[in-house]
Amino acid sequence: MKILILGAAGMLGRKLLSRLATEGLEGAPVAGAVLHDVVDPAPAQALPFPVECHAGDYAVPGAAEALVAGRPDVIFHLASIVSGEAEARFEEGYRVNLDGTRALLEAIRVLPGYRPRVVFASSLAVFGAPCPEMVDDDYLCAPSSSYGVQKAMVELLLADYSRRGFIDGLALRLPTVSVRPGRPNAALSGFLSSIMREPLNGLEAVLPVEEAMRVWIASPRAAVSYLAHAATLDTAPLGARRSLNMPGVSVTVGEQIAALRARAGERVAGLIRRAPDATVTRVVGSWPQRFAPARAQQLGFVGDTDFAAILDAYIDEELGGRLPPP
Amino acid sequence: MKILILGAAGMLGRKLLSRLATEGLEGAPVAGAVLHDVVDPAPAQALPFPVECHAGDYAVPGAAEALVAGRPDVIFHLASIVSGEAEARFEEGYRVNLDGTRALLEAIRVLPGYRPRVVFASSLAVFGAPCPEMVDDDYLCAPSSSYGVQKAMVELLLADYSRRGFIDGLALRLPTVSVRPGRPNAALSGFLSSIMREPLNGLEAVLPVEEAMRVWIASPRAAVSYLAHAATLDTAPLGARRSLNMPGVSVTVGEQIAALRARAGERVAGLIRRAPDATVTRVVGSWPQRFAPARAQQLGFVGDTDFAAILDAYIDEELGGRLPPP
Repeated sequence: MKILILGAAGMLGRKLLSRLATEGLEGAPVAGAVLHDVVDPAPAQALPFPVECHAGDYAVPGAAEALVAGRPDVIFHLASIVSGEAEARFEEGYRVNLDGTRALLEAIRVLPGYRPRVVFASSLAVFGAPCPEMVDDDYLCAPSSSYGVQKAMVELLLADYSRRGFIDGLALRLPTVSVRPGRPNAALSGFLSSIMREPLNGLEAVLPVEEAMRVWIASPRAAVSYLAHAATLDTAPLGARRSLNMPGVSVTVGEQIAALRARAGERVAGLIRRAPDATVTRVVGSWPQRFAPARAQQLGFVGDTDFAAILDAYIDEELGGRLPPP
Repeated sequence: MKILILGAAGMLGRKLLSRLATEGLEGAPVAGAVLHDVVDPAPAQALPFPVECHAGDYAVPGAAEALVAGRPDVIFHLASIVSGEAEARFEEGYRVNLDGTRALLEAIRVLPGYRPRVVFASSLAVFGAPCPEMVDDDYLCAPSSSYGVQKAMVELLLADYSRRGFIDGLALRLPTVSVRPGRPNAALSGFLSSIMREPLNGLEAVLPVEEAMRVWIASPRAAVSYLAHAATLDTAPLGARRSLNMPGVSVTVGEQIAALRARAGERVAGLIRRAPDATVTRVVGSWPQRFAPARAQQLGFVGDTDFAAILDAYIDEELGGRLPPP
């Protein structure tokens, strides 16, 4: 099984590669991987399969053709201008998120006899207010951000290219992934990770929304398990509908802070500073707070149990179980 | 009020222009119209306002810029590769239906201080099987044709450009428009008009589906009234959701044939020949059979009463009330 990962230097890309190294792809061995990102995606660890690394802009003419020339069996497309940046830079968001992906699909289409599995990281940002309290699998996409529009447009392309037999595609509408390790990015939902991660490192974090805001989140580990599962599952039951709402945990910001306080103490939780931001509140507040992801569950996608478990996993995996001194 | 009509040589474009000539635009006088199509859209009748005609490909570089240079107040975007052709010619469908429309929106966006009303003729083809028996305003778009995908993608763009303040857009998901006068086109639903129109002209028509197939249709007159109403209604109540399911009549093919028989006699109805077609059956059969278009009705869109009235209007308007001799 040959793999291509677009967005391989990102948090999910790196964790996916680690998983492939230790577990293969749902039992199947990985024969080799091509990694691509705007920055050098060279992995830190040694890997049990050959890896080829490319840094550059995948949306420029010719780039996609080069990336699929080796006919990878599975393509993980995780590359994206994130929500905050796509809102701030209108043209760049469409160029990278829409046109870049379309160029990739076209590069695949024109290769005769080639029909790879394409796993696309979509997002709950394809939805927008007003949403019902519980969003089911038949609810309309009405994004409240340019990022969400670009994701929804790619979902439509992916379904059409799958229906026409050019690819075998799946779009996973990932919950907000939290707690993310590493540095903050320009995602409008990035604060959800920051308010856990920074205090756990003894640093101040900014909370731009009300504590009552309810969000739908998944741990990095769960998100990576979704990607891996999507790479090998039988797509026949999906028919023409290739987009899936992924399982998650529905939790308020206040409940997350309470969980941090319970686990790491008052001093750590006290490092969260309130600074309301209208754009973040509008866009993140427009995303669904809770899903009934029946199709995904029937297809075997399994999510996190609750937020406490997500927080515990972060502390174990990223901090080696160490908390700041009280 | 300055008007631009893309697709002005088409059936809806011509009927819209006639309506503008006699009624203005919902009471407001029309100061002038720019007409565009791939063939010369010059109107047959004299008009009470100046008209400028352009023939060409609106999707080629520079074309859209030229069309909006005069800053029309209202743009009716009716131009499209139809469903059958978009399915047969993959690249051309995306080029015209998606890229051409995007070029139009971009040409508008870069003009400072310009924010026209854009009325886009979308279609019930944005939906696909399985659909509930009654489709409400919150049901997801899952097209079963490339044409439907292109319409759905444009709807997303239109909503984003509206949200960002570049246009004030509305996408009308038109029912299948029937009975269409004139010659057959490459729309997969074209048979619905043919099985009425051709027999009424003493000609044989081909029925490619089962009589039990139920469809959602609107008369040309109703469709044109939707376009005109959309050009001037207050868009504030729409918020970010700029796509509307239009009213229609839910009727089976068999009921339509029975109405033809009742109105024009057995000999006319007997000119319909059965010749099942799998593609037409699959795609047209995947479209919703019935809508609950609550938002559109609240916004004042009014549809046809029943199929008999649609057929009567066709015979009156297009045939001067004349039926073939029995």
